[in-house]
Amino acid sequence: MRLRHKNLLGIKDLTAEDINLILDTAESLKEVSTRDIKKVPTLRGRTVVTLFYEASTRTRTSFELAAKRLSADIISIATSISSVTKGETLKDTGKNIEAMNPDIIIIRHPHSGAPEILARSLRPAIVNAGDGAHEHPSQALLDLFTIREKKKRIAGLKVAIVGDITHSRVARSDIYALSKLGASVTLVGPATLIPVEIEKMGVKVSYRLEDVIPESDVIIMLRIQLERITQNLFPSIREYSRIFGLNSEKLKNAKKDLIVMHPGPINRGIELDPEVADGPHSVILEQVTNGIAVRMAVLYLLLGGKEESELTN
Amino acid sequence: MRLRHKNLLGIKDLTAEDINLILDTAESLKEVSTRDIKKVPTLRGRTVVTLFYEASTRTRTSFELAAKRLSADIISIATSISSVTKGETLKDTGKNIEAMNPDIIIIRHPHSGAPEILARSLRPAIVNAGDGAHEHPSQALLDLFTIREKKKRIAGLKVAIVGDITHSRVARSDIYALSKLGASVTLVGPATLIPVEIEKMGVKVSYRLEDVIPESDVIIMLRIQLERITQNLFPSIREYSRIFGLNSEKLKNAKKDLIVMHPGPINRGIELDPEVADGPHSVILEQVTNGIAVRMAVLYLLLGGKEESELTN
Amino acid sequence: MRLRHKNLLGIKDLTAEDINLILDTAESLKEVSTRDIKKVPTLRGRTVVTLFYEASTRTRTSFELAAKRLSADIISIATSISSVTKGETLKDTGKNIEAMNPDIIIIRHPHSGAPEILARSLRPAIVNAGDGAHEHPSQALLDLFTIREKKKRIAGLKVAIVGDITHSRVARSDIYALSKLGASVTLVGPATLIPVEIEKMGVKVSYRLEDVIPESDVIIMLRIQLERITQNLFPSIREYSRIFGLNSEKLKNAKKDLIVMHPGPINRGIELDPEVADGPHSVILEQVTNGIAVRMAVLYLLLGGKEESELTN
Repeated sequence: MRLRHKNLLGIKDLTAEDINLILDTAESLKEVSTRDIKKVPTLRGRTVVTLFYEASTRTRTSFELAAKRLSADIISIATSISSVTKGETLKDTGKNIEAMNPDIIIIRHPHSGAPEILARSLRPAIVNAGDGAHEHPSQALLDLFTIREKKKRIAGLKVAIVGDITHSRVARSDIYALSKLGASVTLVGPATLIPVEIEKMGVKVSYRLEDVIPESDVIIMLRIQLERITQNLFPSIREYSRIFGLNSEKLKNAKKDLIVMHPGPINRGIELDPEVADGPHSVILEQVTNGIAVRMAVLYLLLGGKEESELTN
Repeated sequence: MRLRHKNLLGIKDLTAEDINLILDTAESLKEVSTRDIKKVPTLRGRTVVTLFYEASTRTRTSFELAAKRLSADIISIATSISSVTKGETLKDTGKNIEAMNPDIIIIRHPHSGAPEILARSLRPAIVNAGDGAHEHPSQALLDLFTIREKKKRIAGLKVAIVGDITHSRVARSDIYALSKLGASVTLVGPATLIPVEIEKMGVKVSYRLEDVIPESDVIIMLRIQLERITQNLFPSIREYSRIFGLNSEKLKNAKKDLIVMHPGPINRGIELDPEVADGPHSVILEQVTNGIAVRMAVLYLLLGGKEESELTN
Repeated sequence: MRLRHKNLLGIKDLTAEDINLILDTAESLKEVSTRDIKKVPTLRGRTVVTLFYEASTRTRTSFELAAKRLSADIISIATSISSVTKGETLKDTGKNIEAMNPDIIIIRHPHSGAPEILARSLRPAIVNAGDGAHEHPSQALLDLFTIREKKKRIAGLKVAIVGDITHSRVARSDIYALSKLGASVTLVGPATLIPVEIEKMGVKVSYRLEDVIPESDVIIMLRIQLERITQNLFPSIREYSRIFGLNSEKLKNAKKDLIVMHPGPINRGIELDPEVADGPHSVILEQVTNGIAVRMAVLYLLLGGKEESELTN
């Protein structure tokens, strides 16, 4: 039971088999977080470094809890207090961290490809915790885990991803992951926020959310970045919300067992109405719970997971 | 041995019996911090989250050390790096943290009532580490612990609390705690900084520190917030210091065994003269030491403390 | 096996015997960081506080990893979030930390002598992690460790230290350390950045790097602080780099087994050309690796190290 990869840089590099191995491992590990003693000694004495060039309490906390529940030691490096401010290059920072003998470096970076730069030159396993508009693989894996848990399958499902597709690493990773496991994906958003020729990735595109809702098994709402407005990529928040936001009115035609997902944090009242975010279709908080299990699985498998029996004892 | 409360939101909710249980437990746990190996396995594998919306090295450090000495895992979330900046509501932040299965969330927040908002909607135990001008229960508990340790009793003592009563959560929690255990409290400060009708809380009010000193067994000096001056709540620092600051001159009429307390950090030379802060009456640093024992007790009891023998082994 | 000092404030206070004890201990401990389980229980239950008044990811991370690999509990206090901003004095901050019963306080501070202020009034061991332009003893110790590992000796070696000597705590600590162990030191830099009468420390001075290179066994390049330019201490970066920067052209006359060191982070292309930083003479990343071993040794010895057999099991 071992991932055939040294790093987790993106979903693009994984096979369906790889993805299933991670999801199966996460399924075994999910139970650990429900115990009184939420901790297994699996990675005791291993060193995990989180290297975050963008603030993200949510993702960093999830990775750190995953590492702690596997008994690893953690060092957190955030840019604002790092030597990055002294003008050191990413590769130099990476080489310096490598020299401290960590086992895994988890990196979040505003530039696409930053994790790959580290992976090409460093010995430790590199985990991409989000790089520019490129990939956010652990988010896609927790999305898949949540879908599989709820729907008992991925293949054949109809999944809509709604919002700013162009700038979303979550969308990109989700598209790869869902396609590899046989789901069919429809992207929904304003034409200005959907990349030209994206259909080459094997997805459909729609500009009308109402048309897509009735046939969807899963809807993944993306967070809208309010700064896109000043870039004139859409006219106003109210306009965006009216056309591409999800509310209970629009959900009247939805399947009964539709699940609604969101990577968080939610802009309540913009892309998602509170009555949907907190309603019966929403599995948003379960995504957060599953994020820890999936990240435990990733850390475990990258460090060359051993026997199943060892895993949760 | 278990607290009959899921949360510690304020002293107001506690009975004298609850308070004594916490103080007794803290007494057992204080010794742990004096060992070479300052650690008991009591909360191994439990997850404690500190969620601080205001900077407070002192309180956060004390809680984190308390948790570490009980072997818990800790995740620290500070606002400046949290998704709060992305406009998420407190309840959403709380729900997201809850989804990660923590056992305890320790919250400090500039708004009164924030911990109660979390407590009403979340499963984990909530500990109020200071909310607006409302309560700071662990500070009051460590104050009581220190008084009890020094005076061997609380009931019947005469305690003065001096300074900006209106804006002080410490004062409010101390008043509740001292009153419940039978001490008699006198508030001292400029009229602009003492709430109207505060006597309804069962306390006395005085505007002359000199009158109160001779009869006091305990004097709790509050930190003056320098920004109050710009609000015209008192005329000048020199004026405030002269009238309501404590110096050795004023202490000439004090009881021999008077103890002087301060929640820190001290404005030396303003509310407290160095010769008093570092003098024989001061127990300020013992308050800091006791803070860890009291917070260990709170964490332990909220997680459903078991047998006494388990506690310190 | 115990250091005859309570604190590590500077190299100036140490004897050659002290230094050798630290280096020998570090040699035993270096292997721990190469294991799968990079952890020994030596300092389990001990509390280590890092108190950093200047940002330094590199040094803080190294100390924290050293402490974690010895199983100590760590509390990190950084100024931006500390009560320092509330105007508390250094001594008050120290006294408050002391009251929490830590075993070691590791302090970095912009003012020379700050660690000594703590050492004079506090019980816990104080480790200077860099104070103003005074000392940075753990950096000098890791420099010595690296030289000894590469050269099998220190005595008799010719070592050049190049750059802004005046403002460099690294230079000062290195001069003490190298001199005590019998190396001969030459300082190289612009006259404006070399203290007058520095020869009294037993070193030579040169203003021409080219003259010094051929005879050197070790060259320690210092980081140039770009803000010195605005102070008119040297004319321009290009000028500095041309005269005092190290590149492969200048290294043509170097000994074959010359080693080049740098405390990091490197200004690539200013004091050090990339082809030298990454070239065969460079041992810069090994310095980083050795930093952890040396800091583990310091923490271990200050807490009264026991038997050798205990050390690495």
